[in-house]
Amino acid sequence: MKTLLYPSIEKWDQLCTRPEIDKADLDQSVRFILNRVKSDGDEALREYALKFDKISLIDLKVSQAEIDASAGKVPEKLKKAINVAKANIEKFHLSQLRDEDIVETTPGVKCWRKNKPVEKVGLYIPGGTAPLFSTVLMLAIPARIAGCKQIVLCTPAGKDGRINPVIIYCAGITGVTEIYKVGGAQAIAAMAYGTESVPMVYKIFGPGNQYVTKAKEIVQSDGLAIDMPAGPSEVLVIADKFADPAFVAADLLSQAEHGIDSQVIFLTDSMELQNRVLAEIDIQLEELPRKEIALSALQNSISILFASIDECLDFSNMYAPEHLIINTVNASDIAEKVTNAGSVFIGKFSCESAGDYASGTNHTLPTNGFARAFGGVSTESFLKKITFQEIDEKGITAIGPSIELMAEAESLDGHKNAVTLRLNSIKNV
Amino acid sequence: MKTLLYPSIEKWDQLCTRPEIDKADLDQSVRFILNRVKSDGDEALREYALKFDKISLIDLKVSQAEIDASAGKVPEKLKKAINVAKANIEKFHLSQLRDEDIVETTPGVKCWRKNKPVEKVGLYIPGGTAPLFSTVLMLAIPARIAGCKQIVLCTPAGKDGRINPVIIYCAGITGVTEIYKVGGAQAIAAMAYGTESVPMVYKIFGPGNQYVTKAKEIVQSDGLAIDMPAGPSEVLVIADKFADPAFVAADLLSQAEHGIDSQVIFLTDSMELQNRVLAEIDIQLEELPRKEIALSALQNSISILFASIDECLDFSNMYAPEHLIINTVNASDIAEKVTNAGSVFIGKFSCESAGDYASGTNHTLPTNGFARAFGGVSTESFLKKITFQEIDEKGITAIGPSIELMAEAESLDGHKNAVTLRLNSIKNV
Repeated sequence: MKTLLYPSIEKWDQLCTRPEIDKADLDQSVRFILNRVKSDGDEALREYALKFDKISLIDLKVSQAEIDASAGKVPEKLKKAINVAKANIEKFHLSQLRDEDIVETTPGVKCWRKNKPVEKVGLYIPGGTAPLFSTVLMLAIPARIAGCKQIVLCTPAGKDGRINPVIIYCAGITGVTEIYKVGGAQAIAAMAYGTESVPMVYKIFGPGNQYVTKAKEIVQSDGLAIDMPAGPSEVLVIADKFADPAFVAADLLSQAEHGIDSQVIFLTDSMELQNRVLAEIDIQLEELPRKEIALSALQNSISILFASIDECLDFSNMYAPEHLIINTVNASDIAEKVTNAGSVFIGKFSCESAGDYASGTNHTLPTNGFARAFGGVSTESFLKKITFQEIDEKGITAIGPSIELMAEAESLDGHKNAVTLRLNSIKNV
Repeated sequence: MKTLLYPSIEKWDQLCTRPEIDKADLDQSVRFILNRVKSDGDEALREYALKFDKISLIDLKVSQAEIDASAGKVPEKLKKAINVAKANIEKFHLSQLRDEDIVETTPGVKCWRKNKPVEKVGLYIPGGTAPLFSTVLMLAIPARIAGCKQIVLCTPAGKDGRINPVIIYCAGITGVTEIYKVGGAQAIAAMAYGTESVPMVYKIFGPGNQYVTKAKEIVQSDGLAIDMPAGPSEVLVIADKFADPAFVAADLLSQAEHGIDSQVIFLTDSMELQNRVLAEIDIQLEELPRKEIALSALQNSISILFASIDECLDFSNMYAPEHLIINTVNASDIAEKVTNAGSVFIGKFSCESAGDYASGTNHTLPTNGFARAFGGVSTESFLKKITFQEIDEKGITAIGPSIELMAEAESLDGHKNAVTLRLNSIKNV
């Protein structure tokens, strides 16, 4: 972990820059996969499963028998833990479903909005070493609360041709309507264009490797909605001399273990704490099964000593971290001043792991500085708001003449005429 | 206008397909412009102004003197009309700014979201034959209500090197912080990457021609936020035998006059109305200054006779129109069943022009079927929601063990350890 002392403000911009990812090579190979799936459908999906995942699949769809069998394979204790998380995620995401008011902007002119679900959504859950069943909860629960009719889940099968039972179990209890054994860029293609087996959806959610990310980027430029642009995961911790260095080190390491490209930033106004945290990291690293990954991630990571906690926060607002942990005495006051972040964890007991799994907030969050313009996934991500207006005689009489003038000034006489005819019909009654 | 009678449901999908726009040629030329602006900044912008707009510009930024002078050039009657529209747009968009509740998902686990403005936003206003000052109102008013600090507006200057005074006037009264004489794809590049004059922003809004649309698509794939994907404007009108054919014809024509690629769809269950509307279109067309444009647009447009109004609505929900006008006796009941549309106009006096200018709803809406996944521009489009959580001893004691189990099952021991350390610290007190 690189250590910096009191960097001048001119250098902040540079320090906020994430490592560039070279995407040029990816573009061609991902486009090739997308086009293959678009033209050859299931046949392409089966070929890619054989090529990339080394499995020969007949049915791409997970059968009801596989779904029924999964529950028995999940330990009861884990089921209970998942249910605690599920209840909290449901409670928080249900609170985001709010009715809109009808606004009478002028007497006789009523305007309002209504939430309507995106009818068909696709969730991508990566495969790999660990089964990320928590992401199933984070995506399927708000989709179900929003009222999405078709909730499609794609995830690659393991070498045994099966999907981890915990993923299937989580999909089952959260209302996923169908599960397909398809991974990588080809899964994004399948949900974007549809194949014989996999239905086309209107919006695609979920994390993935650089191929998946690139595929989402390309289908987005064709007009398909995606949750948000993606980059490596990151945490920024602000702590003062009252913080427990072991807690800070553990929070930094819990981010570093995600992947070798994870970003970890530690800001403090206490040189003593800085030194103790760095020492704690070395101790805790030894115990970590994913030590090698964490070590690589720490090489891109920085610890910065600032003159004050306020300066730490100013830097954080410029950096716009995905996760921001504020581990200081007056953490709530500092949190009030956050302008750019994905999710903020206030106080010494609010560790990122809580939000990753079970507190109720969503863990699908904007990385790479995207928190300057994007929020994380929420129930609204699975809804769109339709505007409605109902104008009566009194209303069009009041605003009609203004519309006529404005339409005329924009040289849109057809627009004007639609109003004039109505105003005349009222006068002539 | 093509007329269809009772098409079978198998044909609906095809009828909902918009004309394909070939974007392959555009890609290269727009990328060239973007890269030029990225590397050469203002110099590139001045060159493009000379090349495309035939003007030689020294200052790209509109001066305070130009802003001060603009108000005097706008007729008082138009100013009053603009103020009527502004008041309604403000009222409706202010109602969208709502505080979020704090949710205690588990005793000791508080989760909430807070709206924070996107600090820097860019608004693009096209030039061309008509000055689209109404779009300034539709974008700048919610930006100001959201609390955006920097509201940048780019629009091309006319051949006299000036910007239409009504656009400047609207920008002045809505809180736009700076105006630049830059148009086309180069304006999008300037706001995406920044130049010596034009600041970089975090999110870009606004309509434009195919170059502008392509430029927004490309900068979006670099992670910059944009309002929504764009296609040609469109209206779908559902009317029954009680509708005034002149109103229906005027509404269809007000969309057709937008551009030759506008989409106009008319659905009814009354053959008599269908015939009378088509006849009315011919009559009203003669009076329309933009007749030639409307005529071209009508060539891509269809009128469909269905067996019932319910079928009309089913088709509309599949088509997902940008604007949906319901001109029937029980229009409110039918509006209840809308699942996919940008903005819905209920009843005979609710013409699209009302929403385009002055009722209060936003006129920046999803086209091209994007209404299946996207809503129109709203105050929320200029905000992002940050999640917060504050967990105390009691809270982490309650959910901690579940987090430990889930993290372990995902092989993320660092995540688990961050909780274990906290649980141990509580036990050891």
